[in-house]
Amino acid sequence: MYSSIVSKYYITLLLKYTKVDHFGFDVNLTFKQRYLVANQYWKKENGVILFYTGNEGDITWFCKNTGFMWDVAEELKAMLVFAEHRYYGESLPFGNLSFTDSKHLNYLTSEQALADFAILIESLKKNIPGARNSPVIAIGGSYGGMLAAWFRMKYPHIVIGALAASAPIWQFMDLVPCGKSGPNCSETIQSSWKAIDRLTSTGEGVQWISEAFHLCNPLRSQTDIIVLKSWLAETWVNLAMVDYPYSSDFLMPLPAWPIKEVCKYLTDPNESDKVLIQNLSQAVNIYYNYSGEANCLNTSQTATSNLGIQGWSYQACTEMVMPICTTGISDMFEPQEWDFAAYSDQCFLEWGVRPRPLWIPTVFGGKNISSHSNIIFSNGALDPWYAGGVNENITDNLVSIVIPDGAHHLDLRARNIDDPQSVLFARAKEVEYMKKWIEQFNGVSDSLRK
Amino acid sequence: MYSSIVSKYYITLLLKYTKVDHFGFDVNLTFKQRYLVANQYWKKENGVILFYTGNEGDITWFCKNTGFMWDVAEELKAMLVFAEHRYYGESLPFGNLSFTDSKHLNYLTSEQALADFAILIESLKKNIPGARNSPVIAIGGSYGGMLAAWFRMKYPHIVIGALAASAPIWQFMDLVPCGKSGPNCSETIQSSWKAIDRLTSTGEGVQWISEAFHLCNPLRSQTDIIVLKSWLAETWVNLAMVDYPYSSDFLMPLPAWPIKEVCKYLTDPNESDKVLIQNLSQAVNIYYNYSGEANCLNTSQTATSNLGIQGWSYQACTEMVMPICTTGISDMFEPQEWDFAAYSDQCFLEWGVRPRPLWIPTVFGGKNISSHSNIIFSNGALDPWYAGGVNENITDNLVSIVIPDGAHHLDLRARNIDDPQSVLFARAKEVEYMKKWIEQFNGVSDSLRK
Repeated sequence: MYSSIVSKYYITLLLKYTKVDHFGFDVNLTFKQRYLVANQYWKKENGVILFYTGNEGDITWFCKNTGFMWDVAEELKAMLVFAEHRYYGESLPFGNLSFTDSKHLNYLTSEQALADFAILIESLKKNIPGARNSPVIAIGGSYGGMLAAWFRMKYPHIVIGALAASAPIWQFMDLVPCGKSGPNCSETIQSSWKAIDRLTSTGEGVQWISEAFHLCNPLRSQTDIIVLKSWLAETWVNLAMVDYPYSSDFLMPLPAWPIKEVCKYLTDPNESDKVLIQNLSQAVNIYYNYSGEANCLNTSQTATSNLGIQGWSYQACTEMVMPICTTGISDMFEPQEWDFAAYSDQCFLEWGVRPRPLWIPTVFGGKNISSHSNIIFSNGALDPWYAGGVNENITDNLVSIVIPDGAHHLDLRARNIDDPQSVLFARAKEVEYMKKWIEQFNGVSDSLRK
Repeated sequence: MYSSIVSKYYITLLLKYTKVDHFGFDVNLTFKQRYLVANQYWKKENGVILFYTGNEGDITWFCKNTGFMWDVAEELKAMLVFAEHRYYGESLPFGNLSFTDSKHLNYLTSEQALADFAILIESLKKNIPGARNSPVIAIGGSYGGMLAAWFRMKYPHIVIGALAASAPIWQFMDLVPCGKSGPNCSETIQSSWKAIDRLTSTGEGVQWISEAFHLCNPLRSQTDIIVLKSWLAETWVNLAMVDYPYSSDFLMPLPAWPIKEVCKYLTDPNESDKVLIQNLSQAVNIYYNYSGEANCLNTSQTATSNLGIQGWSYQACTEMVMPICTTGISDMFEPQEWDFAAYSDQCFLEWGVRPRPLWIPTVFGGKNISSHSNIIFSNGALDPWYAGGVNENITDNLVSIVIPDGAHHLDLRARNIDDPQSVLFARAKEVEYMKKWIEQFNGVSDSLRK
């Protein structure tokens, strides 16, 4: 089940009954939260617990893709815990009914998830012999990294620190510009949108494009063409996210440095429309069909099914409103303003709820987080989410690590021979900070204590 | 409306529409939260805002009884804001239906109240010209003091510090012993319970006791006798809470140092039962009928109707589970163990909900709060809630002020000629800390900044 780097560990899959609603008392239901525990390197007397704050997907998949925790377990004598986020994977509060309506979805919030984590940790420390006084460090990537940071902010009595990898905690209204980025061979992509427009202006062209992209469902309407374009745009963003230095399988199975592979097909923005689209199709194929097993491409999917797209769509329509906009000039995408009213209407149509775009900054502090401590914000400069992250030290205890050659949370991935120096350096710094927190907690280093 | 010390100020009563449920998106209702603003001493360009985190009662009553804020307004050039807690006073989310069932009561939690405060402050800073960069300090007494402390812990980006007066944040399960205290003339009170038992063992005695206490509703059943006893017990606790050095009217209109007045009647624990009860009745009368206007005493009331007893009863049955127990030996009360199961059953009967006694320590940190900063915990040694408070400095920025001659949040009351030195000292320290926080915030004192 796990890649070779982790298969030497024994891991236990467990379930914990937890409240559906931590913030009210009328609904007295519970559900089974899934979590994974690996403790073969754990120092039994109050050794550290590294706790992965699960995000929007199957926790076993995050477990597989967070080799960093496995790599450092022995050195830190750590127990590893991976907690699944409610409404994802198998941790569904209402089973098959979980996504049916806004009533069943009402308990899908980051605050409820953080409370799940807090209660799970308290229960582990109470029930695992030797763990009562174990320090706990939160670790997460992407939305999981946001949760790790927020967990330390809101529950500093439960976690002594947090590693928030590629966590765009500032990608919210009025905090950072809403721009979007992608591969560096942008000129061809920039040219492609108008080429698609020109080709799809005729019925013959529409059919030609469907075939050129090997679409499973040929384009039939204007809506299909809009969907094709946003599928392409998301593909470019995803490719930039997983631009790892070695062959990997996170969102999709891909070669090493996939952007470089993709850009090989996108060298000349001045080709004829058909040639340009044929090249684009080749490029897209790197992402969707590197294994060569796909007979056709499906525009309704842009990544692994381990991600919970329903849950995330709801979260994006409630709390996790992360404005995105494009200009077509400073970026490679078609110009699109951030239109909150339209976004809100779309959310209401889809989920029966309206987003509250300012709630996350209100509850988690926005840019004003300097009174917190012991959080590492690591970000890869190749990552499209980079701009929404914390990329400067805020205080001595609230630090930023930038990884120039890193894509989306490369530092959380398992050691690899092709890792660039910058990620090795980042991981070493991360371990150093964690050791400092543990020392502070254990009172070993008196000079570090208050 | 206000006592002389505050009547010179102009105060505005305002309403703010706020969400009934901040932690979910299915219920999209709002309600009107009441708050009071006084700004005549406020320095318009980013002067400080002192924000009273309203607790379980009518906000205008807390406003009247928090003269300290009025007394320091000029010195600190502060705006004063008093925010009413949801489900109290006139801030009822569902009007008359607010207390009808567990469904309507579902949004009565401390977390929702803190979110109300956060959103109110953000809205004030946005809408009041000159307030955009105002530092805000939370101030509260009793449960309001707990909220002030928790507000700083959870929303340090919104308040730069908190004065938590007589805030028993540790009066929760497993944190402090559950004992209860009261007046110092305890021997007579200790003797009184058995005297009541002996007298009420005959019908004639029951009638005699009803008359001795001038009860509005004569005792008719065993239950009535139990109610009488808990009414008495609560009276002693309340008396100790408001043992102020001057004539006051907080829970009831009372003379200066009411405990001393009460104890005058309780000097000899070895009197005959009837004499003892007659003395007890005189003592009780100091509390319930100091004004001399009451024709009879009502065992269903123990304090001003400004307190919201329904709301607090529900909160005590959900989050605010503060175990109380008595031994009859180390204290003056009848022995009573803390019986959580019975308590929970009673809550279920009354409100249809069951308490979660460990939730408050989980969410607000219990005794492990040292990573927070800028909170003053002040406690009066005469106060029965003293033992549940923070009475030692935790860090340089999380400090305790003990007021040996103080009852329940005496420091929050208006200046008075009869104030003991210890409360004058406490208030001076409090102002000193607040000035330090403001300086830190304004960056005036570079040496205090990170």
